[in-house]
Amino acid sequence: MSYIAGNYDVIVVGAGHAGCEAALAAARMGCETLMITINLDMVAFMPCNPSIGGPAKGHVVREIDALGGEMGRNIDRTYIQMRMLNTGKGPAVHALRAQADKFLYQHTMKQTMENEPKLTLRQGLVEELIVEDGVCKGVISKTGAQYLAKAVVVTTGTYLRGKIIMGELMYESGPNNQQPAVKLSHSLREHGLELVRFKTGTPPRVHKDSIDFDQTVIQPGDEKVRFFSFDSTEEIPDQLPCWLTYTTEQTHQIITDNLHRAPMFSGAIEGTGPRYCPSIEDKIVRFNDKPKHQIFLEPEGRNTSEYYVQGLSTSMPEDVQLSILRSIPGLEKVEMMRTGYAIEYDAVVPTQLKPSLETKAVAGLFTAGQINGTSGYEEAAGQGIMAGINAARKVQGEEAIVLDRSEGYIGVLIDDLVTKGTNEPYRLLTSRAEYRLLLRHDNADQRLTPIGYKIGLIPEARHQRFLEKVRLIEEEVERLKSVKVKPADIQELLISIGSAEVNNAIDLLSLLRRPEVAYAHIHQMSPAPIELSDEVTEQVEIQIKYAGYIDKQLIQVERLRKMEKKKIPDDINYEEVYGIATEAKQKLMKIRPLSIGQASRMSGVTPADISVLLVHLEHYNRVLAARG
Amino acid sequence: MSYIAGNYDVIVVGAGHAGCEAALAAARMGCETLMITINLDMVAFMPCNPSIGGPAKGHVVREIDALGGEMGRNIDRTYIQMRMLNTGKGPAVHALRAQADKFLYQHTMKQTMENEPKLTLRQGLVEELIVEDGVCKGVISKTGAQYLAKAVVVTTGTYLRGKIIMGELMYESGPNNQQPAVKLSHSLREHGLELVRFKTGTPPRVHKDSIDFDQTVIQPGDEKVRFFSFDSTEEIPDQLPCWLTYTTEQTHQIITDNLHRAPMFSGAIEGTGPRYCPSIEDKIVRFNDKPKHQIFLEPEGRNTSEYYVQGLSTSMPEDVQLSILRSIPGLEKVEMMRTGYAIEYDAVVPTQLKPSLETKAVAGLFTAGQINGTSGYEEAAGQGIMAGINAARKVQGEEAIVLDRSEGYIGVLIDDLVTKGTNEPYRLLTSRAEYRLLLRHDNADQRLTPIGYKIGLIPEARHQRFLEKVRLIEEEVERLKSVKVKPADIQELLISIGSAEVNNAIDLLSLLRRPEVAYAHIHQMSPAPIELSDEVTEQVEIQIKYAGYIDKQLIQVERLRKMEKKKIPDDINYEEVYGIATEAKQKLMKIRPLSIGQASRMSGVTPADISVLLVHLEHYNRVLAARG
Repeated sequence: MSYIAGNYDVIVVGAGHAGCEAALAAARMGCETLMITINLDMVAFMPCNPSIGGPAKGHVVREIDALGGEMGRNIDRTYIQMRMLNTGKGPAVHALRAQADKFLYQHTMKQTMENEPKLTLRQGLVEELIVEDGVCKGVISKTGAQYLAKAVVVTTGTYLRGKIIMGELMYESGPNNQQPAVKLSHSLREHGLELVRFKTGTPPRVHKDSIDFDQTVIQPGDEKVRFFSFDSTEEIPDQLPCWLTYTTEQTHQIITDNLHRAPMFSGAIEGTGPRYCPSIEDKIVRFNDKPKHQIFLEPEGRNTSEYYVQGLSTSMPEDVQLSILRSIPGLEKVEMMRTGYAIEYDAVVPTQLKPSLETKAVAGLFTAGQINGTSGYEEAAGQGIMAGINAARKVQGEEAIVLDRSEGYIGVLIDDLVTKGTNEPYRLLTSRAEYRLLLRHDNADQRLTPIGYKIGLIPEARHQRFLEKVRLIEEEVERLKSVKVKPADIQELLISIGSAEVNNAIDLLSLLRRPEVAYAHIHQMSPAPIELSDEVTEQVEIQIKYAGYIDKQLIQVERLRKMEKKKIPDDINYEEVYGIATEAKQKLMKIRPLSIGQASRMSGVTPADISVLLVHLEHYNRVLAARG
Repeated sequence: MSYIAGNYDVIVVGAGHAGCEAALAAARMGCETLMITINLDMVAFMPCNPSIGGPAKGHVVREIDALGGEMGRNIDRTYIQMRMLNTGKGPAVHALRAQADKFLYQHTMKQTMENEPKLTLRQGLVEELIVEDGVCKGVISKTGAQYLAKAVVVTTGTYLRGKIIMGELMYESGPNNQQPAVKLSHSLREHGLELVRFKTGTPPRVHKDSIDFDQTVIQPGDEKVRFFSFDSTEEIPDQLPCWLTYTTEQTHQIITDNLHRAPMFSGAIEGTGPRYCPSIEDKIVRFNDKPKHQIFLEPEGRNTSEYYVQGLSTSMPEDVQLSILRSIPGLEKVEMMRTGYAIEYDAVVPTQLKPSLETKAVAGLFTAGQINGTSGYEEAAGQGIMAGINAARKVQGEEAIVLDRSEGYIGVLIDDLVTKGTNEPYRLLTSRAEYRLLLRHDNADQRLTPIGYKIGLIPEARHQRFLEKVRLIEEEVERLKSVKVKPADIQELLISIGSAEVNNAIDLLSLLRRPEVAYAHIHQMSPAPIELSDEVTEQVEIQIKYAGYIDKQLIQVERLRKMEKKKIPDDINYEEVYGIATEAKQKLMKIRPLSIGQASRMSGVTPADISVLLVHLEHYNRVLAARG
């Protein structure tokens, strides 16, 4: 029996990493928000690896934080290990990665959400969308509760018609044997959304006491901890290490011998899996010349003996999984606590979305996270916050916020999805970003905090701290430019660090440009050095050292921006645009890009097509102007 | 595809309150033990009220602790409130009750189990028993894993063919939307076990911030905290209060108006519910003259906003639940986070069990907890530890440990179940114990620690502490008996507490017998008082003050013991016993009591039947003796 259970501004369906960010963003922007989920004990659950961050993914977490999201703060409160990766390489690829206390991560996030004034949490299984005249008006739960809203964000993760597969076994299920969402899938189709079938997988979990750590290599956390959030200051003591081991020839033999029982190859799995997070059987088949693969043993929390076996995602039958594990050094006597499995689920073809993450088919309906064909908690959360922001802005009658490819990895991610689509679970990589020297881990705040502040997600006090930091950076750059030092005062130091001597007085900025001169040296050389925080001096150093490259990318960005500014009107009729190739025409009609910039990034749209389109638009705009 | 996944001494199926105690007991007694459960994140989950203890139930927790079990220690580490109930009444009904931090309770228990050397934890869904020639040899999981063992303890709680019901909605499910165990039910039937359908229910959960606490009455914890475990010493600071409110006329009207939609009355529920834990709709119908019912609002943990609404268990439709809640003072604007529901499940008819909790039909197969027709975490845990102990002793070739009705509430519980059976979920009550002055909360250690020590569950150090306590009690009783005080030295004090003056020297023990004289007064009167712990002086006081009643019960117990010692041989053929009424004969053949004592407690067996049986046994034993 159906009844009206509530009336909200925004409803978020699902409470995974996308759902949490979406719900918090909408509520913090002043919308009465409902988050509804199948099981309230699974809020912010990590069904796969107990970690956050890494290359590109860590950048996204920083961007979420700069916008006013929660993932960064939450992991900073619940990590058991923190490591900055790639510190030997340039600042563009520095990447923070944390091991999470998985249970604490969940409870901390749930508590934050419970304490958010305009946010209501509700356990329930959404089965149907309420759509009237192409506009989403709410959702209906299994119990017949009708929740009405002005915008709905669907973040179903792997629950949407979820199916668990291991070996010969296959059954309907969400992750870790949770109830799947079956009927909602039909409702999405009914309202015109095309769905595809994707799959992902998770490795077995093993018991700590059954691991022989002596045969593995310790991977400790950093001594000096960096945080994900620009807000965090408090370190968590007593980090836990991870442990590295490798697969063996025997491992590979076991897998090869049992490939006929692998659902990936037997045809049992119809969904497409993630290329950059393949199962171990997939790795053995695709890279059959590689003698071994890395396996990381990662604690799932501070107060549990469960260890995650990173690198060993698999849907092989359970008995084979045990044999695989026991063929690995350190795991000869391992106790498998949970079996790995593959999970298939329905995803929306993301080219059906606007860059705001609103579906083109149903106004007011947004989707975010794995349902849009991505993989990874961070990719999900990055979409989540944007969908939440744009759902709120829609409700408030404001224009959507769309990050462009030069503003953030989130921009790259969403642009890739809605413009190019994806045939497989999409994962962010630094190589996907063409402006990656701009999209650094360290400068996410400078890129996005102004936006977060403008839309009301960054509180005043934090914004003031941010402005102060920017001011200090600028002043220090100016100072270094103006302060000149005499050769006699710095020669000794220069020689000691192997830097060329100088003959005339020289400004500090020029010295800092030298690769071998660090900011710390400049500090020593400076006549009246200013004491600044590491955060500030790091920015000063990077901005000065990489100025040449950065400036070059900024020129490219200018070009991008120009093309993005050339908007394509909503009502353009591509049939009427003469001179565009048929393939391009069909794709343009499907994707309906918002700008020439977006159109130019579509596959199948050539520079010639773009030229024709530009001419058409010029004509269109003149006509518009003439009409007044 | 089936494969041998392991070989154990004891397998425990399920990880609820029964499963945890069973697995820990078996492992601690030296058995290689496997605990297998559908979801490892649900170990020691509290699907209903977030509390442990209360009348009779609290006694069971103390008994579990005295035997070497875990529930007491675990709640002592994770409580958020502790209260001794009934302190205004006699010591027999004093009852400790704790509110638990429900998430911490789970994680703490899981960690204890993970750290137990001979215990293996495994996620898996058991679907089949392996039974050969009437002997249980192991279990088979959904993935085809065959786990072999010498004894199996099945503790399926409400998962066995679980079905959730609320209003018109009904679906297969374990508690809180977990995967149910469906096939195991068929396997149990296949091997000769008769199953019945029981049901239980849970109330909605609400958000703290939506409660108007001003309209409720605060229920704080005790200032001086008592522990469940005889081992615990460390208090948890900052207890959280609970809050009391009441249903209203409006509440009752809403329920009455919607009874046609209540599955309890519409016929949708086939299972029998717990009499002493009825749903609110049941209470309204059964006690329709009562103008209001108590409702306690209880926090589910320290770091969550979810509150449990004790007293409002219901399977009414969701919309009715919301109306019911909002008709209660303090809840006018309440946000319901989770809907209450009823859950139906399969249970074993417990008269098919021996007092050891081994099934009569299948040797080596034990059942414990809700599957045996009980309700309550404590009842489950009490059976769990006994099933674990007896599974281990069976494996080790030792006789079963059976507590008699004078030794513990656990004895009463199990004797009731296996002797009388139950038509509805069985709950322990102090009124079920005929020797309740002996079965006190405070003396559980004196009753059961010797047994726990004998079977290897109580470590040496703890046993020594226990013996020391007993010694101190005995010595102090002796001392009080021997120390005489002069009237002049005590007259003033006696007058001040309203006690009659004495004319001659009198021993302290006689003085302590007086109702108005407390041990603290004796301490003041004593010439050279001994400093003793509260634990010891409490025992001294109770033993002396209630000596008359206690001695009377001990005489009754002697009679009971005599009857329990008259064993009925396994191979008795009741058909051959002339003179027993047909009804009694049939029931005796079904229950096959182990002793005359047990037979005498069976319904349908009269004192006349017992006399006949005694004559028959005498004859039988003489024949046996004659044969040599």
